[in-house]
Amino acid sequence: MTPAELRQAAREGRWTRPTAGVCDGRVQANLMVVPAEAAFDFLLFCQRNPKPCPIIEVLEAGRVEPACAPGADLRTDLPRYRVYRDGQLAAEPNEVAGLWRGDLVAFLIGCSFSFEEPLAAAGIPLRHVETCANVPMYRTNRPTTPAGRFHGPLVVSMRPIAAAQVALAVQITGRYEAVHGAPVHVGAPEALGIADLSRPDFGDAVEVRPGELPVFWACGVTPQAAALASRLPFCITHAPGHMFVTDLQNASLGR
Amino acid sequence: MTPAELRQAAREGRWTRPTAGVCDGRVQANLMVVPAEAAFDFLLFCQRNPKPCPIIEVLEAGRVEPACAPGADLRTDLPRYRVYRDGQLAAEPNEVAGLWRGDLVAFLIGCSFSFEEPLAAAGIPLRHVETCANVPMYRTNRPTTPAGRFHGPLVVSMRPIAAAQVALAVQITGRYEAVHGAPVHVGAPEALGIADLSRPDFGDAVEVRPGELPVFWACGVTPQAAALASRLPFCITHAPGHMFVTDLQNASLGR
Repeated sequence: MTPAELRQAAREGRWTRPTAGVCDGRVQANLMVVPAEAAFDFLLFCQRNPKPCPIIEVLEAGRVEPACAPGADLRTDLPRYRVYRDGQLAAEPNEVAGLWRGDLVAFLIGCSFSFEEPLAAAGIPLRHVETCANVPMYRTNRPTTPAGRFHGPLVVSMRPIAAAQVALAVQITGRYEAVHGAPVHVGAPEALGIADLSRPDFGDAVEVRPGELPVFWACGVTPQAAALASRLPFCITHAPGHMFVTDLQNASLGR
Repeated sequence: MTPAELRQAAREGRWTRPTAGVCDGRVQANLMVVPAEAAFDFLLFCQRNPKPCPIIEVLEAGRVEPACAPGADLRTDLPRYRVYRDGQLAAEPNEVAGLWRGDLVAFLIGCSFSFEEPLAAAGIPLRHVETCANVPMYRTNRPTTPAGRFHGPLVVSMRPIAAAQVALAVQITGRYEAVHGAPVHVGAPEALGIADLSRPDFGDAVEVRPGELPVFWACGVTPQAAALASRLPFCITHAPGHMFVTDLQNASLGR
């Protein structure tokens, strides 16, 4: 399936499932839509926190067709959305065309799916993929750099990596700055304020086996957490795992 | 002289000259100040054009003390400013405290002074430094990616580099993405729409000798050119060569 076919299927309601593993090799993106009056603060938040919030594209107010996916419509082409009002989840619809307004600004933010492909290609197993689970994610005690009204904790994803492969995992993901880049922390979860790895704040727990270290990457849930913490009157995001599939190749993000 | 001493001297009117060569090893920055209503568009312009507009820091509206220079005041600590109204140069004062407003947003943008230091350290001569001239800069036929009201041509700086050192110059500056990074063009000025290297649009002409190629880097004048082309009602910049000297080390920008 091509990205355009996947987006068309989502638009017609024929694809409402998560997008993990679809359209091999293509960049998938987190979606965040905020009113124009909050857009400068949010763009500044992303600029100040590039590891959790790597920008793939920002559209002008009201625009719905990104340059990274000609012909697409961000109001309909994701399989599932979340609508938040005053920091509370209000709805989880399959399209948001009826909610769209001329003052809405859409942000597409990089996703770790892009660096998992080269990790796997290098022979580094990904436990959450092996077990068909969501990657475990944790709120940390490390604050993001605030910007205007936006603030909140850094959220990280965790992958158990064999001690002998940690350096390789750092080197490979370090080449992908457009999608979170190198880990922010290797081992010692307690130093990040994570008391119990078996109880993630988002996603599913995975086993860390003897001889493995928990390795933590900045996570694209961070900007959503900040948007909620700031109690925006209105915002739209993708539903977890239901990403926007762009035409970009993952390989184009490496350096 | 430390950066704090230089800034204090500028604040007290004891330093009104250009800043090339002062505070060895410290990052110097272009200043661009725009009203809040234009700040999202300008930040988006920088995000879409990272080579000419590498952001060092953006301050919240009304703020004048950047994190990269604690104790500094952006209204007084540059040796000379330019004030533009409706896209026309209106004044070139030594401080802008009297013009400051609560809705002004200050952008600090990287400057090629930072990568000239490692070039020179690697044994690559810089002709404009040898001749105590300004680096020559040219408007090109290559458009920037527009953002909201901002648009305009890419402006480049040019340094003649010996053919045997071109690759080294690319590799060294490529490590400095926060300050324009690798060249955008090597040789063939006519392909950039530059008809006559001896007549730069800004700065001073320098000789390109036999066995040398003209090498072109994205230039920090690009965002100013875009601000003028967009006929902003009001903006403040540094005067050419009269940069803001931060506390940051150039070495911290390399990778």
